[in-house]
Amino acid sequence: MVREIDVWFTMGSTYTYLTVMRLPQVERECGITFRWRPFHLNTILQEMKHVPFRDKPTKSAYMWRDITRRATLYGLAPKLPVPYPSKNSAHANRIASLGLEQGWGRDFVRASYRRWFEHGDPNGEEPNVSETLRAIGQDAARVIELAERPEREQVLVAETDAARSLGIFGSPTFSFGSELFWGDDRLEDAIAWATRGTLARG
Amino acid sequence: MVREIDVWFTMGSTYTYLTVMRLPQVERECGITFRWRPFHLNTILQEMKHVPFRDKPTKSAYMWRDITRRATLYGLAPKLPVPYPSKNSAHANRIASLGLEQGWGRDFVRASYRRWFEHGDPNGEEPNVSETLRAIGQDAARVIELAERPEREQVLVAETDAARSLGIFGSPTFSFGSELFWGDDRLEDAIAWATRGTLARG
Repeated sequence: MVREIDVWFTMGSTYTYLTVMRLPQVERECGITFRWRPFHLNTILQEMKHVPFRDKPTKSAYMWRDITRRATLYGLAPKLPVPYPSKNSAHANRIASLGLEQGWGRDFVRASYRRWFEHGDPNGEEPNVSETLRAIGQDAARVIELAERPEREQVLVAETDAARSLGIFGSPTFSFGSELFWGDDRLEDAIAWATRGTLARG
Repeated sequence: MVREIDVWFTMGSTYTYLTVMRLPQVERECGITFRWRPFHLNTILQEMKHVPFRDKPTKSAYMWRDITRRATLYGLAPKLPVPYPSKNSAHANRIASLGLEQGWGRDFVRASYRRWFEHGDPNGEEPNVSETLRAIGQDAARVIELAERPEREQVLVAETDAARSLGIFGSPTFSFGSELFWGDDRLEDAIAWATRGTLARG
């Protein structure tokens, strides 16, 4: 049986950097297929009247330190803090969604996050979007035009509805059946659950 | 060198149940001393204008499921959800603080959490407080009278000030020097850091 875990994420999320950077290696090692599903988390957070980290300098300081420590564990070297929140993560979500359909989505997401977390240029903003697309061999103007067509936003709205129905309220969230695992630090839990139906490691 | 990790907690916290229940065994296994430090997290959350989980049914549902899964991993069997928030966790913090000075604090905290998470009787409320004290061999009336003296609250205020100075905003938080690790799921990280200065496991 092929096991699949859905990875729900928004390009505006900070901790998602850790996940998208380490996921290809994790996927090779665990034999599970991960389905990348961008959605508009901001829509759900606004419905919940919750904006994480805004006006919370103490919590934000902890977040950057926590991400830095964990990035080191994963062999990554971000330069934090970086500008946050990104002003147009919805735009980046639409491009990621298009790219995942067309086969270059994972490259886009990872390269875009590198630009944000290692060079300070936020996801969804320029020059990040155009330069990332060019760097992965895409026609930036053409992709942006396609991504901003109404039908792409319809895909995002449908995916956001699906996320809401599952009870998702954060990014990244891993889902396996009806079980949710919220946060990059729950990736190993999700894998254990999908593999053995328990959090215990093999 | 004796390594010490401070465990900052409030008796009103849900995830703290996992920590206080598993900490004695963890302490025996890792050779690190844990200093239990109750503080009034609510004071800090109110200053941050942040009340976790209130009016957030989706996030609350996830929290109970997440705690249940992790409790199973630790060999615990809570019956969740339980009434939350507790109405007088500050009272329980004061009793825990007194008990930790007098040598019965850990027993009180653990027994009180068992009553809350396994029998639905919240920390800080009656009959939890009196019955827990009696169950661990303390004179409930005498302890409550001592715990409600102004000097005990002064200890809590000082500890809350110390927590705020460190940048603490959640329970449990593990601190080692200036490094903070927030959440029961960061306990192993805190131990790794205190032992080897990295998150990598030995």
